[in-house]
Amino acid sequence: MAQESRKTTGRSFWAWGLEALEPTAAQMASAGAALASRFGMKLTGQAPPRLQDVKLRRPRLKPPATLAEFCATGKFERALHSCGHSFPDRVSKFRGEFATPPDVVAFPRTEDEAVAALDWAYSSGAAVIPYGGGSSVVGGVTPPAEAERVVTIDLTGLNRVLEVDRVSRAARIQAGVLGPDLEAQLKAHQLTLRHFPQSFEFSTLGGWIVTRSAGHYATNRTHIDEFVESIRMITPKGIWESRRLPGSGAGPDPNRIVCGSEGTLGLVTEAWVRLQAKPRFRESAGVAFAGLAPAAEAARRIVQANLWPANCRVLDPGESATNAGLTGAQALLVIGFESSEVPQASLMRDALDIAMETGGKIVDRAGDSVPGPVAPGPVDRWRTSFIQMPYRWNELLGFGLINDTFESAITWDRWPDFDKAVRAKLGRAMREVAGKGDLNCRFTHVYPDGPAPYYSFTCPGRPGSEVGMWQEIKAAASEAIIAAGGTITHHHAVGRDHVAGYEQEAPELFRAAFRSMKSSLDPSELLNPGVLSGSR
Amino acid sequence: MAQESRKTTGRSFWAWGLEALEPTAAQMASAGAALASRFGMKLTGQAPPRLQDVKLRRPRLKPPATLAEFCATGKFERALHSCGHSFPDRVSKFRGEFATPPDVVAFPRTEDEAVAALDWAYSSGAAVIPYGGGSSVVGGVTPPAEAERVVTIDLTGLNRVLEVDRVSRAARIQAGVLGPDLEAQLKAHQLTLRHFPQSFEFSTLGGWIVTRSAGHYATNRTHIDEFVESIRMITPKGIWESRRLPGSGAGPDPNRIVCGSEGTLGLVTEAWVRLQAKPRFRESAGVAFAGLAPAAEAARRIVQANLWPANCRVLDPGESATNAGLTGAQALLVIGFESSEVPQASLMRDALDIAMETGGKIVDRAGDSVPGPVAPGPVDRWRTSFIQMPYRWNELLGFGLINDTFESAITWDRWPDFDKAVRAKLGRAMREVAGKGDLNCRFTHVYPDGPAPYYSFTCPGRPGSEVGMWQEIKAAASEAIIAAGGTITHHHAVGRDHVAGYEQEAPELFRAAFRSMKSSLDPSELLNPGVLSGSR
Repeated sequence: MAQESRKTTGRSFWAWGLEALEPTAAQMASAGAALASRFGMKLTGQAPPRLQDVKLRRPRLKPPATLAEFCATGKFERALHSCGHSFPDRVSKFRGEFATPPDVVAFPRTEDEAVAALDWAYSSGAAVIPYGGGSSVVGGVTPPAEAERVVTIDLTGLNRVLEVDRVSRAARIQAGVLGPDLEAQLKAHQLTLRHFPQSFEFSTLGGWIVTRSAGHYATNRTHIDEFVESIRMITPKGIWESRRLPGSGAGPDPNRIVCGSEGTLGLVTEAWVRLQAKPRFRESAGVAFAGLAPAAEAARRIVQANLWPANCRVLDPGESATNAGLTGAQALLVIGFESSEVPQASLMRDALDIAMETGGKIVDRAGDSVPGPVAPGPVDRWRTSFIQMPYRWNELLGFGLINDTFESAITWDRWPDFDKAVRAKLGRAMREVAGKGDLNCRFTHVYPDGPAPYYSFTCPGRPGSEVGMWQEIKAAASEAIIAAGGTITHHHAVGRDHVAGYEQEAPELFRAAFRSMKSSLDPSELLNPGVLSGSR
Repeated sequence: MAQESRKTTGRSFWAWGLEALEPTAAQMASAGAALASRFGMKLTGQAPPRLQDVKLRRPRLKPPATLAEFCATGKFERALHSCGHSFPDRVSKFRGEFATPPDVVAFPRTEDEAVAALDWAYSSGAAVIPYGGGSSVVGGVTPPAEAERVVTIDLTGLNRVLEVDRVSRAARIQAGVLGPDLEAQLKAHQLTLRHFPQSFEFSTLGGWIVTRSAGHYATNRTHIDEFVESIRMITPKGIWESRRLPGSGAGPDPNRIVCGSEGTLGLVTEAWVRLQAKPRFRESAGVAFAGLAPAAEAARRIVQANLWPANCRVLDPGESATNAGLTGAQALLVIGFESSEVPQASLMRDALDIAMETGGKIVDRAGDSVPGPVAPGPVDRWRTSFIQMPYRWNELLGFGLINDTFESAITWDRWPDFDKAVRAKLGRAMREVAGKGDLNCRFTHVYPDGPAPYYSFTCPGRPGSEVGMWQEIKAAASEAIIAAGGTITHHHAVGRDHVAGYEQEAPELFRAAFRSMKSSLDPSELLNPGVLSGSR
């Protein structure tokens, strides 16, 4: 396959991230050895896939000459765009299996080219998959098996900050820009979007908007929904563009129907988004507790006190041991405050007072009000683990291991029972399917009325059977979440993998109404079919 | 007309508020004299209407015996429910003119009765007007003239707090509860919704939700949209109920399509809403500036510093003179901080530092950190004016006066030109229509990316011609707002009066999509017809 047909540079076709950072054989062997010792069993790894060995079905569609210049039909791009990074995606890709690649990947460099690509694909009766960074972990960019032809439109060519309004702290930005490039362009203006999901490196502004991405920050402005002033979206019926406003009470908010639409209504090409000045003042603390319950209680009290910490993250004892270096008996509360304008020591003092009243012990403290150099502690260890996580996971492929995460949100009153139910059901599923397994939990976000718990599980599988085994465990997790009253997804979106849970969570009449709304924009039902609504 | 057909107690059929607080002849004479001296002209008042003189068209529909017990067809209820409190509404009612009263007003006491009323009205082909407190200033509860029959469903019988979750600080509340009753019921639990729109006394939770009400607080949690955990709504197609969650990323937020739907999708009967503990710590300040521009600049800097004041209100020199007792040369910035948990002095200090750097002079200061009793200053005077405003307006009827308010929101970069354009266009319209007029402005809310300006205007009209004159001035204001890039409404909603502006503001494809969504729930298009979409 000709290298010259590549439009995407640097990316690995199977692993998270860059080709240059694919795990080495030594890294994988070391990861396998650690796993083997953790589970007390022998593990044999397999070698990563090679592009030359990959076989793809032939493209069933050819772009017209007018579009060919910005379209690709080669093996690399079609493989890269064939799915996201869910557990089944990771396993399939590692095996070199790409069941449903798109027939054509379009890389528009202008909105006009995006319109031309959409019009051509739509009039060809092709399913259209809007694609940003491809970081979906829920099948959100996977072409449906039943589609007779598929065009994926990769929007990363629309990657410029077009206009900056310094006084309002906002910018008009093309939706295909990846996180680091977005921040680099804003840096020149001493501004930041300050939206850092774990997928930041390989996800786009448009992807964040349509999946209702949640950033790294724990409270207040962390959801992309809150950053959006206006959205420009191309649809089969024309351009949808909302007015740029700081607030409005004029009818239902048009932006809020695009947020969460997951590419089923159109292709977002631009948005005006709210920015912030770079933080200059910072305080950070780690507080250890005798278990998860008092740490959660402290987090609840801090967030209900309206202190609005930038970080207020709870790690259960398992997570604290694995990723922050604590003993395994302690839960860790990570607290952070940031401001571009005013010192944060007083807010941190208020938060720590609450944490200590709730039985916490400060084990890490840094920031403007802490004199002298501070040695890296559990908070730093946790941060480093968090950032490197997707790359570490690359090393775990090929051992038959089953590892995944899922997240929810639940009100505080139901949280303890919710957690018990999820742990019980997931533990049983892992024992039944795999004989054993680990399950950790942390709160990624805390709201005045409840936490957003994020669970990570790992269990040994059988190479070749991992996906089936995962499906059983994932189904158990989803059922437990829905039965216990949580949301099927706090920030991973619905995609194709969460449709069953979504159908139980969202009001039936809302889903019917949304289908009517979609039909008015996408009468042939070609935009990301199967996402949000299941295959039809 | 038999008194026994009344279901609503205490309300005036023509004035804002209670019958017992209708203005006396002496109050009206005194208000008229003040106006006459303000405009340098002779003003003759007219007497308020008497119910016995009011003539209503006959009811064109009769409730079935099964519903009769909770329905009213008498003059008082039909007059009371015939419109809201817009300027034309106030003038018509004062004249005793009720052009389009509903034929039947239903007062369901349970959700089952609300369903029965909706089913009967819908199957009768009647337009259905959901009615809460009736405080609409945009024609949101006015039966359309072209409807052949109209049933208004007054939901104030659904007025109970059903369930309180203290740990999550949330409650399940029936949507027909009026503000004071809601707060009284929550007080027993030491909790508050802390949502205080100016209409608080005569508006309901459900009304707030469907109109995207904005509360008294200037930043952060002030919009009802942010307080909603879940909504229960009855529609012609059945019950719409969202799951109670602190956050979710599962598809577009179903609650956000109900927020702003203004009764066109169904009748909201219940909601789970987020509550707060009662504030215990308070700081308040008034800061005077040499004009509106530096006061606005200070507000912008304070809100962009993420200090999240409960109050951050800017009054222009005219508003500061009229309602806060300042000189007429100064603008006033009102700053307030509140917390249930921690002292607020440090945040106030940060805010005042910014205000003084921007040229402000502290003219009022109160709160926990201010020792001793403090005499009421401009901030108190302003608060009292604000609360009494709707009652004061009752006294101004019958003099041919034209007085109204309108609000918008605009990003900071465009604010100065927006304000200039609005003042120029409105000033011209008032001069052309009325020869003269006053126009004041304040910011009701400030966002990091822009203010929500609220304009009040008063000019002399000709008794009998006020409504036509108002229409010209209102049209000029709406055109100016839309042309200068603002929203047609920040928190008064669209109703019937703002449809023309709304059609220019909201994306055309969104409005088409929303119509499709509505059709799926309301196939006969009988729910509040004409609201949001114009008469058809």
